[in-house]
Amino acid sequence: MAVNFRHVLHTTLLLPPPPPHLWPSPLPSCKPTRTKLSATSSPSPSSTQMELHTQGRQKFMEFPFVSAPHRELMVDLVSTVEDRLGSQLLPCTLPPDIQHCQNQNGTAQASLHIRSAHDSSTSKVDFILGSWLHFALPTGAALNITSLSAYLNPSTDAPNLVVELIQSSPTSLIFILDLPPRKDPVLYQEYLQTFYENTKLETRRQMLEKLPEVQPYVSSSLYLRCVLSPTAILIRIQTEDSGPERLEEIIKDQLHPVAKEVVGIWVDHCACGEREVEEEEKAYLKKRDQIIKRKTIEIDLGTNFPRLFGPELAGRVLGAIQEVYDR
Amino acid sequence: MAVNFRHVLHTTLLLPPPPPHLWPSPLPSCKPTRTKLSATSSPSPSSTQMELHTQGRQKFMEFPFVSAPHRELMVDLVSTVEDRLGSQLLPCTLPPDIQHCQNQNGTAQASLHIRSAHDSSTSKVDFILGSWLHFALPTGAALNITSLSAYLNPSTDAPNLVVELIQSSPTSLIFILDLPPRKDPVLYQEYLQTFYENTKLETRRQMLEKLPEVQPYVSSSLYLRCVLSPTAILIRIQTEDSGPERLEEIIKDQLHPVAKEVVGIWVDHCACGEREVEEEEKAYLKKRDQIIKRKTIEIDLGTNFPRLFGPELAGRVLGAIQEVYDR
Repeated sequence: MAVNFRHVLHTTLLLPPPPPHLWPSPLPSCKPTRTKLSATSSPSPSSTQMELHTQGRQKFMEFPFVSAPHRELMVDLVSTVEDRLGSQLLPCTLPPDIQHCQNQNGTAQASLHIRSAHDSSTSKVDFILGSWLHFALPTGAALNITSLSAYLNPSTDAPNLVVELIQSSPTSLIFILDLPPRKDPVLYQEYLQTFYENTKLETRRQMLEKLPEVQPYVSSSLYLRCVLSPTAILIRIQTEDSGPERLEEIIKDQLHPVAKEVVGIWVDHCACGEREVEEEEKAYLKKRDQIIKRKTIEIDLGTNFPRLFGPELAGRVLGAIQEVYDR
Repeated sequence: MAVNFRHVLHTTLLLPPPPPHLWPSPLPSCKPTRTKLSATSSPSPSSTQMELHTQGRQKFMEFPFVSAPHRELMVDLVSTVEDRLGSQLLPCTLPPDIQHCQNQNGTAQASLHIRSAHDSSTSKVDFILGSWLHFALPTGAALNITSLSAYLNPSTDAPNLVVELIQSSPTSLIFILDLPPRKDPVLYQEYLQTFYENTKLETRRQMLEKLPEVQPYVSSSLYLRCVLSPTAILIRIQTEDSGPERLEEIIKDQLHPVAKEVVGIWVDHCACGEREVEEEEKAYLKKRDQIIKRKTIEIDLGTNFPRLFGPELAGRVLGAIQEVYDR
């Protein structure tokens, strides 16, 4: 069944911010000192907005349909990004029925959270998008997709981030982890060197590839294959022979530490790294980013969401995402 | 041992033209009627040049160190390209000791042939490059690499062609077959549609992937991964269990027909297809092509050739290739 959903790359786990009392974090952030949500360039969110955000985040962070190691992985990644970038992010202001939605007969549920960055000259983040999707299959099994993606703005040319786990049975998981490049790596060799060779991302890919339960995963979308980097981790893990416990063990002991490391590399080198971008190049990045976002939403959600949630609700969800993409 | 040579992607089998008496071919060519070598824009090659070319081609087409099915595959691909494009190509004018070279103790031999296209407004071909390389390993086994690649010029943006077979034992083969894109496919979706989706290249990749002896092959060069298309065939075939005969059977019954089809697609849709290219885009193509060629020679030959043939001979071979690349 995962075959039908393997393009749902960016339906990813919403990254709602932590509740306000948790905002000051002991971990270092891009900026040495934390600022409140009320950055100078943006008005403070109202208490209604914060309430909306907090409730949506709570539901999102439950990851109610996946195993404990799967949930812990996602919560840890979301928390890591929030701890480092939280002060740059606005609360999620999607309407409640889009932050969490379900179909009429309750077989499909989804949580969607998007946090844009402050319109500030200091932030390199465009927005962060997370989601989970649960769909009860007619066979009695269920499809669960959890994901987290982050897009940077044209003040930097550094790569974006995408993490996705697609679980179609207790013994089968597709795992996608990448820093998709924002420039054609064929033309810009320094880019390849800086973000992919110097960071040794390939060693993480190779480590997972060596596990006996792991097979390479090839997306059926040629476009998505082009969007991903040469060190992208795209694997299918199957543990039919050793049961669901082995899959949970792999998530906990292998996927979680690798994902944590890669997200750390993304925060340090991409979201918080310094890059000089000429004005002309900003236009190029803006154009390329826009094409990727539009095409991704078309491939990922355009087909599946209407089937799962009906055209009316799907239209509203896609419209809400599109609005952020076009901002 | 193939690991040490897996970047030798473009040392590929030279495509020397057929002897002059074979030039008129029964197969259709890009141009409905064949022209002689003496196109209006280029002087006729001298008899010395033709002799040099013919001798080099003869040696090249022997493929003396590989199995019959491997040889037949390469001869067929070279002949197919020559039959369709031969009238556009000049003879190979590399010096004899570069068309065929060997090291001092005779453990390494190589054949290299390059044919540039006439400087004609009608040809879309830049040059065609083929090679074979034989290296006797200290273990008694041998490494054999055969390949064919073709580069188009900026009058079209259509993809190039690369075919390579890397055989490190009688039961182990790496097979690379692709039409590498000449534009960033993320930015140009029509390009992806025209050359990769409409041509159904993915069905060929999937067909080979399903063979039980086939595993995906991942180049250790991140740059080469970026250069290849989303439908690139990169596989490792291992037949230890069923012996060398099974590998020969796979080459004959599976690789050969797929390679023939893909080369046919390249000739029809790329080398002979009509594309409109604006002046500004020509500059982009020229720049991108140049970067790929320089980087490829650096990755493929820059490391291995000096080790195999010594610095002096390697320098001359690389210089001869560079001269064609920079033309």
